[in-house]
Amino acid sequence: MRTPEELISFTCSALDEVRSRPPLVQCLTNSVVVNFTANVLLSLGAAPAMVDIPGEAGAFARIASGLLVNLGTPAAEHRDAMVEAVTAANDAGTPWVLDPVAVGFLPVRTPLAFALRDLRPTVVRGNASEIIALAGAGSGGRGVDSSDEVDAALAAAYALAGMTGGVIAVSGPVDIITDGRELVRIDNGHPLLTRVTGGGCALGAVMAAFAAVDDDRFATTVAAATVYTVAAELAAESAAGPSSFAVAFVDALATVTAQDIARRAVLR
Amino acid sequence: MRTPEELISFTCSALDEVRSRPPLVQCLTNSVVVNFTANVLLSLGAAPAMVDIPGEAGAFARIASGLLVNLGTPAAEHRDAMVEAVTAANDAGTPWVLDPVAVGFLPVRTPLAFALRDLRPTVVRGNASEIIALAGAGSGGRGVDSSDEVDAALAAAYALAGMTGGVIAVSGPVDIITDGRELVRIDNGHPLLTRVTGGGCALGAVMAAFAAVDDDRFATTVAAATVYTVAAELAAESAAGPSSFAVAFVDALATVTAQDIARRAVLR
Amino acid sequence: MRTPEELISFTCSALDEVRSRPPLVQCLTNSVVVNFTANVLLSLGAAPAMVDIPGEAGAFARIASGLLVNLGTPAAEHRDAMVEAVTAANDAGTPWVLDPVAVGFLPVRTPLAFALRDLRPTVVRGNASEIIALAGAGSGGRGVDSSDEVDAALAAAYALAGMTGGVIAVSGPVDIITDGRELVRIDNGHPLLTRVTGGGCALGAVMAAFAAVDDDRFATTVAAATVYTVAAELAAESAAGPSSFAVAFVDALATVTAQDIARRAVLR
Repeated sequence: MRTPEELISFTCSALDEVRSRPPLVQCLTNSVVVNFTANVLLSLGAAPAMVDIPGEAGAFARIASGLLVNLGTPAAEHRDAMVEAVTAANDAGTPWVLDPVAVGFLPVRTPLAFALRDLRPTVVRGNASEIIALAGAGSGGRGVDSSDEVDAALAAAYALAGMTGGVIAVSGPVDIITDGRELVRIDNGHPLLTRVTGGGCALGAVMAAFAAVDDDRFATTVAAATVYTVAAELAAESAAGPSSFAVAFVDALATVTAQDIARRAVLR
Repeated sequence: MRTPEELISFTCSALDEVRSRPPLVQCLTNSVVVNFTANVLLSLGAAPAMVDIPGEAGAFARIASGLLVNLGTPAAEHRDAMVEAVTAANDAGTPWVLDPVAVGFLPVRTPLAFALRDLRPTVVRGNASEIIALAGAGSGGRGVDSSDEVDAALAAAYALAGMTGGVIAVSGPVDIITDGRELVRIDNGHPLLTRVTGGGCALGAVMAAFAAVDDDRFATTVAAATVYTVAAELAAESAAGPSSFAVAFVDALATVTAQDIARRAVLR
Repeated sequence: MRTPEELISFTCSALDEVRSRPPLVQCLTNSVVVNFTANVLLSLGAAPAMVDIPGEAGAFARIASGLLVNLGTPAAEHRDAMVEAVTAANDAGTPWVLDPVAVGFLPVRTPLAFALRDLRPTVVRGNASEIIALAGAGSGGRGVDSSDEVDAALAAAYALAGMTGGVIAVSGPVDIITDGRELVRIDNGHPLLTRVTGGGCALGAVMAAFAAVDDDRFATTVAAATVYTVAAELAAESAAGPSSFAVAFVDALATVTAQDIARRAVLR
C-alpha cells in the first residue's frame, strides 16, 4: 500500500513520461466525443489514433502503446472492430481501457460489455451505475450520468477487479480507484467537467496513455485521474460556462505542471 | 391566440423547468454536429443521450423525455435506427422533432424524410427550402443554407402543419413557428449562428428538450427558439469570430436568465 | 514559373473569390475532424456539405464546387461513397482533394488510397510519410504525424505529380507544393496546429474550396496553404494552449485580410 505522497510523486514522473515519449493511443470511441478525446490526448502530449474499422483495428492494436474501447455509440462495424482490437491487444500485451457507457439497460451494448469484461481489460472506467452493472449487480444508468453514489460502487469495484484482474476506476464527485488490493480516493475535479460531453469518456483515453508508460497500472490510473482532475480545477478558475471551461481544460492539460499537482492533489 | 407577452412568460417558466428536471433528450443526429448538439443540451441543463443504433434506439425512445431525428448524414444503420426510434416514440407518447436536412434533392434522405413526415412528428424544424420541400413543393436546398426567404415558406408551413398535426418551425433571419392555428415570428438571433456548423441542428435538439416539459408544443417550440436566439445575441456581444462566438453561445445557454429573455425577446 | 510575389498576389484575389461566391465544398472525411472541418470552411466563408453516403455522394459531387476525400476513419459505407463521389467528380469536372491519412501500413485504407490515386486527384495533401507511401516508396507513418522530413518527400512528390497529373502538397514545418513543374516552399504556420486534431485534415478541405475558384490548381493550392498557415500565425499570438489556439484559428480564418497575407507570407 503506497502513501498518497508516493502516488503523487509517481503521478508527476508519469506525466513527464507521457509528454516525452509520447505514447500512441488507439481509441475506438463514440461519435459524440471522438474529437474532444483526440484533442485531450494531443494537448496532454500523447499521440491519438482513431483506427476503428475491422481489418485495421487489430493490426494497429498490436503496435499501439495503449487502447481505449468506449461503448457510447457502438455501431455494428465498431463492435466488430472492438473485439478485433481487444483480441490483438491481449495477444501483443497492449494495455487497454474499457469504458462501458450506459451498460445495463441497453440491449446491444450490454452483452458486448460483458464479453469485453471477460477479456480482462487492464482498466475499467465508468460511473457508479456502470461499474455496478458491469459487476453484475444493479441495472445500470440511463446514460453517462451516474444515478448511484460513488461510494455505493465500492463493493462492485472490488468484485469487478476480481473478475478482470485489473484496475477499476469509478468516476464521480470523488473518484475511486482500486485494483482489489490498493484503494485511493481522489478529491479533485470540478462539476463543470460533467457539463462537457466527453468529460468522462476522454479520461478513459488518458488512462490508456498513462498505462503505456509504466507496468504499475494501479499507479498509472491514479496518475491519469489526478492530472485530469487537477487540470479541471485549473480550468474552472477562468471559465465563464461549460464551453469556455472545455477550452481552458484542454489548454490546461498542455500546461499543468508537477508543481500544480503537488500543490493541489488530494488523495486519500 | 396568445399574446407575445404570454409566450415570453411561458418561455421563462419552461426554461426553469428544463433546468430543474432535467429532460433526457435522445438524439439521432448527423456526425458533423453530434458533439456540438450534446454540449448545447448539457449547457442548457438537459441530459443528452445519443443512442443511435438499431436494437437500442427504440428501447431508449420509450424512456426518453424527447427525441430528435436529424437527417444530415443518414448512414444505413442510422436510417434503420431512426424508424425504430420514431415508431417507439409514437407508441410511448415521447415527443419528437424532425430536422429534414437538405430534403428535396438528395435521393436517399428525401424518401426517408417523407416517410418520417407521415409518422407525424411533434415538431418539424428546417430552413425555408427544407420546409417547402417537405411540404411537397419546391426542390429543397443544397444543404443547410436556405435559398428561399423565410416568409415564402409560410404557406408550406401551414400545409405541413396540416399534414403532421404538429408544430412547424422555419429558421432564418426571422424564425416563424406555427401549428396551423397560432403563428409567431421571432426577431431574435444573430448571423454568426449561421457561421457555426450545427447552429440550426442543435436548435432541433433544444426543441425536443422543451417539448418534454409541457404538452403545449406550440408554446414549448416558441420557448426553445426564443431562449436559443436570445443566447445567440448575448454571445455575439463578446465574439471575435465564429468559433469564439460558438464558445460564448454554449456558455450563454447555461447562464441566460428570465430577465435576459424578458428584456430581449421580440415576438410578433 | 511564377515569383513568390505573383503567388501572394494571386492568394489575396483567391481569398476574395472564396468569400464572395462561396464555393460548395463536399467533404467525405473522418469522424474525428468532421466538425472542425465544417467550421473551418464556414469561417473562411465557404459552404460545407458533408454528403457522405452511397446513393447521395455521387449525385452531390456533380453539383459541388469542390470535393475532399479523407481516409482517416474509412468505414465500409464511406469507402463506397468515396469511390462513388470521385467517379462523379471526375465525370462532372469537379476538382477533388485526396488526403491519404496513414496510408502505407494499414491494410484497408492502403489499397483504397492507391485506387483513388489512380483516379487522378486534382490535389493530394499529406505529410511527408504519407506522400512517400502513396508514391510507392517507404512504408508510411503511423498516423497523421509525419516521421519523415518534409524535404525527404520532395522526390516522392514529383513522382506522385507525374502519376496523377495534379498538385501535391506536403505538409510539415515547411509546406512544399508542386505540380511537377513549379515548386513552392511556404515558411508560415505554427507548431500549435499540430496539437489540434484536424489541423492538417481541414487544410485539405480548404484546398478544395480554393480549387473551386480558379482552374490554376497549383496557385489555388498555394493560396489555400498560405491563407491557412498565416491564419495559424495570427491565432498563435493570443493562444494560451492548443484549444484556445483552435478557437482563435477558426476566428482568424474569418478575419484574415489581404494585408495580413502580404505582410506575413513567406514563399520561396
